[in-house]
Amino acid sequence: MPPSSLATRLTRISGASLSEENDLLAVEEPLEIRLGYEKDGERVSRSVSITMRTPGDDEDLATGFLFTESIIRRIEDVAFVKPCGTSDDDNVIRVELESGVDVELERLDRHFYTTSSCGVCGKASLDALRVVGADPLPVGEISFRPSMLATLPGRLREAQKTFDETGGLHAAAAFDRHGELLVLREDIGRHNAVDKVVGALLSEGLLPASELGLMVSGRASFELMQKALLAGMPLLAAVSAPSSLAVQLAREFNLSLVGFLRGDTFNIYAGEERIA
Amino acid sequence: MPPSSLATRLTRISGASLSEENDLLAVEEPLEIRLGYEKDGERVSRSVSITMRTPGDDEDLATGFLFTESIIRRIEDVAFVKPCGTSDDDNVIRVELESGVDVELERLDRHFYTTSSCGVCGKASLDALRVVGADPLPVGEISFRPSMLATLPGRLREAQKTFDETGGLHAAAAFDRHGELLVLREDIGRHNAVDKVVGALLSEGLLPASELGLMVSGRASFELMQKALLAGMPLLAAVSAPSSLAVQLAREFNLSLVGFLRGDTFNIYAGEERIA
Repeated sequence: MPPSSLATRLTRISGASLSEENDLLAVEEPLEIRLGYEKDGERVSRSVSITMRTPGDDEDLATGFLFTESIIRRIEDVAFVKPCGTSDDDNVIRVELESGVDVELERLDRHFYTTSSCGVCGKASLDALRVVGADPLPVGEISFRPSMLATLPGRLREAQKTFDETGGLHAAAAFDRHGELLVLREDIGRHNAVDKVVGALLSEGLLPASELGLMVSGRASFELMQKALLAGMPLLAAVSAPSSLAVQLAREFNLSLVGFLRGDTFNIYAGEERIA
Repeated sequence: MPPSSLATRLTRISGASLSEENDLLAVEEPLEIRLGYEKDGERVSRSVSITMRTPGDDEDLATGFLFTESIIRRIEDVAFVKPCGTSDDDNVIRVELESGVDVELERLDRHFYTTSSCGVCGKASLDALRVVGADPLPVGEISFRPSMLATLPGRLREAQKTFDETGGLHAAAAFDRHGELLVLREDIGRHNAVDKVVGALLSEGLLPASELGLMVSGRASFELMQKALLAGMPLLAAVSAPSSLAVQLAREFNLSLVGFLRGDTFNIYAGEERIA
């Protein structure tokens, strides 16, 4: 696996002064995910995704991606996950499924957003989630205190400070109702950061994570809400703005959605009943 | 076309106080791009992309996408661009090419990052750009003053304030060496914001934009640098961090790359000779 940060020389301009300096860059490299499975009694192998990612936790990224794409349902489906090669610049990861596990790869081939009769639209995107078996989450099982939520941005920044010396990474974290960050992952792509968190929860047997929230360092898009829903996480909290479709998804599937979380000031867009 | 922002009710928490408020959300909806072209003497039509985008400037988004994916080379290739339907929630845009225009759609089908013999890696991603005919940009034709660059974040914020009432949009802008923002576009996806800018430049006959820089409100990834290169823009300036592969691309293809542009303090990662 390549390193996750890389030293560089740069020229720093500050007003009229100019200096040559060393700094660190967040590494961006493609990762290919290859899936091995049994079909008609024979083992086959297929490339299912190539994503630009920051190297690190590639195994979690691969299983998290397959889980949030509804290709695998439980960690028991997975026989093993390992890099294809042994060299340092290896960017292919192999996920081998157990014999007898059914996989439906058609979803990756066909257009996810056009499964509904209405054509291409936000509603079709939501309907497509029902097609893969996503149900609205139950309400009343867990709640989160506003005073706890207020501590999350600081905790995330504190944890990022340790890991991210590049200023170029998105962070995602699973937290419990006491505000403890159980799993924190970083990546140049925010969907990858979330997949890494989901993959880590999956491998620890913690899915569905019905008592955990998901914190993200940026905005809340449809894609991120969808990953939270499929992981069974009842709350997504974002430092920045949610999109219209993220809010629609949250309301239709009973998720709580918090945006512009900046200390003790934040907006609740859906699922107020879980913020006690 | 759907609206680009949507009113919502939300609960605002500020310390111990709680209020019900109205606010605006950035709209996120899928857009399907359909390409019509001539093949073996017959007209065919094919879906080439579905992307989550903020409605608005869909025509520019479609042509900009096709241009930065090297499917069209000049605006003269395009017979017309128009929405497929007439309803307000129409999310399909049709780009019809002139007869006799050759299209190579294989690039969209095959894996872009695996064209090189070395397999999947950053170098393969750079090599793939050479395959589509991208050449290093010439040096010495244009330069940008640091004092002008220092004004860009303010100008971008000022222009965004007018358009973006949601706080949820990325901005991209083409600017000249006097710091004037010639084209500014916004979108929930930063790659879309850049495609909209490139599409607008294309339709105005301004490509290759060898005397314009590209400013982006977020980070500088490989994908954004690639779009700047294909549009012939010699400088990309980003408010946040560049990735390792963005820096590599800039150095190999003679682009200038400025990051962490915050007033008169910024870093130059490549192409210092254009910053005079």
